[in-house]
Amino acid sequence: MTAFTRLVRFLAKDGRTYYGDAILPQGVTDIGKAKQARIVTGDIFGKHDVTEDVADIRLFLSPLAPEHVKTVRCLGLNYEQHAKESNMPIPKYPVLFYKPVTALGGPHDPVPVHAVAQEAEGLDYECELVAVIGKRATGVSEADALNYVLGYSVGNDISHRDWQLKRGGGQWALGKGFDGWAPWGPGIVSSSVIKDPQTLRIKTVLNGKTVQDSNTSDMIFSVAKAVSFLSQGTTLLPGDIIMTGTPQGVGAGRSPPLWLKHGDVCEVSLEGVGTCVNKVEFGNSKSKL
Amino acid sequence: MTAFTRLVRFLAKDGRTYYGDAILPQGVTDIGKAKQARIVTGDIFGKHDVTEDVADIRLFLSPLAPEHVKTVRCLGLNYEQHAKESNMPIPKYPVLFYKPVTALGGPHDPVPVHAVAQEAEGLDYECELVAVIGKRATGVSEADALNYVLGYSVGNDISHRDWQLKRGGGQWALGKGFDGWAPWGPGIVSSSVIKDPQTLRIKTVLNGKTVQDSNTSDMIFSVAKAVSFLSQGTTLLPGDIIMTGTPQGVGAGRSPPLWLKHGDVCEVSLEGVGTCVNKVEFGNSKSKL
Repeated sequence: MTAFTRLVRFLAKDGRTYYGDAILPQGVTDIGKAKQARIVTGDIFGKHDVTEDVADIRLFLSPLAPEHVKTVRCLGLNYEQHAKESNMPIPKYPVLFYKPVTALGGPHDPVPVHAVAQEAEGLDYECELVAVIGKRATGVSEADALNYVLGYSVGNDISHRDWQLKRGGGQWALGKGFDGWAPWGPGIVSSSVIKDPQTLRIKTVLNGKTVQDSNTSDMIFSVAKAVSFLSQGTTLLPGDIIMTGTPQGVGAGRSPPLWLKHGDVCEVSLEGVGTCVNKVEFGNSKSKL
Repeated sequence: MTAFTRLVRFLAKDGRTYYGDAILPQGVTDIGKAKQARIVTGDIFGKHDVTEDVADIRLFLSPLAPEHVKTVRCLGLNYEQHAKESNMPIPKYPVLFYKPVTALGGPHDPVPVHAVAQEAEGLDYECELVAVIGKRATGVSEADALNYVLGYSVGNDISHRDWQLKRGGGQWALGKGFDGWAPWGPGIVSSSVIKDPQTLRIKTVLNGKTVQDSNTSDMIFSVAKAVSFLSQGTTLLPGDIIMTGTPQGVGAGRSPPLWLKHGDVCEVSLEGVGTCVNKVEFGNSKSKL
């Protein structure tokens, strides 16, 4: 049995969907450069095998199948410079909110913007390191926490500031939970490869221009601290996802604000993982409110 | 094929776990009075059958099996009198937050209170009508919304006011999401039986004393309005649960506040459904923070 190093889920040229271990040339770490993957069989959270069978990658999909994700947790205000640009105090405890699993999308999926999210301005990007829980975790210590992490990915915590901050009664969930508003991928790099998640460059490129460029070393609560904290009195399940907050440079922090519009292409990247590229698509469907 | 009217999930005297249709004497609507149920086979969200096989109920379980629940949505401040006691304005839109699926518990399960939730006072009860989504819903109108509801139950949105309001950076999720903090049941009454969910008495009895006693007619956003609203731009899945907010009378709204303590027995009831009875258990495990 061989464990995966860079897990991808993809549509293959044979028309089927697989889990695979991305095949990269020596020295390349960007999963998106992979053209092929070795097919992974078995339980990705447990006994699995990287087989000799190689498939050609046609399209990278959301790295975990919908039935494999239980809960999507997100941290707010978890980078010092971002807390400052938001004019918010450094939080004493991790600030937690959730997205529904229906918010997840693939690394090349469009981000659909429904009529209700077009009623006001405020559509924003947030590049985030994504930690994936690999083992049931409850009451784990900070020192032990990373042993419960399957691996790391990158995602975009798409946020509508008007719904998030003004129309939600102070709760952020409404403005962050629409279908497809948590695209992520292209894959999950095993925690056996990324041993220290707090040294990685993270950035957002919008229509070719860099708008966020930071490092996970600026996190207020490290992945280890966050996993430990979130597991006190709460069971984290294999397939739970933690989006660990975004650095400075979001559209809301600019003057004037920089809001996403129809047709924009937003790329979020994490060093050692790759890039999640999503096009913003304002839909034509009407609100039925 | 016969559809269920009062779905229960239970441990039977034969030691096995079943879905069943509760058998009640003529005129009785409290599911908790059922001693037996007709075993339900098939897909409870689709083609299923109420069989002739009868099993003896030993213990009512959380009405949906863990693998059948996708997302737990909750509404805050959704009763007029509760918004008033909280000194909060009547919200213009439903106030949404989430609980993780690990928060769900059965109608006779203890509510575990972990060390981190014992660090400060503030443990509170909230009786709530629970709506269960039966069909994939996206962009549904208010007029059509109840056709997407499988049925109704009652639950307790256990909340720690200090974690919810003071330590969570304004986000309520932390103080409401601990393991077992959303007990519900004893069953789900089909929307074919409860045609109007806005006329039901709802109450909490704490250690034998009534502390909340209201009616779902006091809801600001009816179940139909909430389902329609939440489905705009967001897909609701079969097995999604919506806890629709609590009426006045919570512990935090009293002077002095009335906090739950170890050993308290909290009963939340909904007319036509039954009662969810949970004992508060302060655990001995230590925090690993």
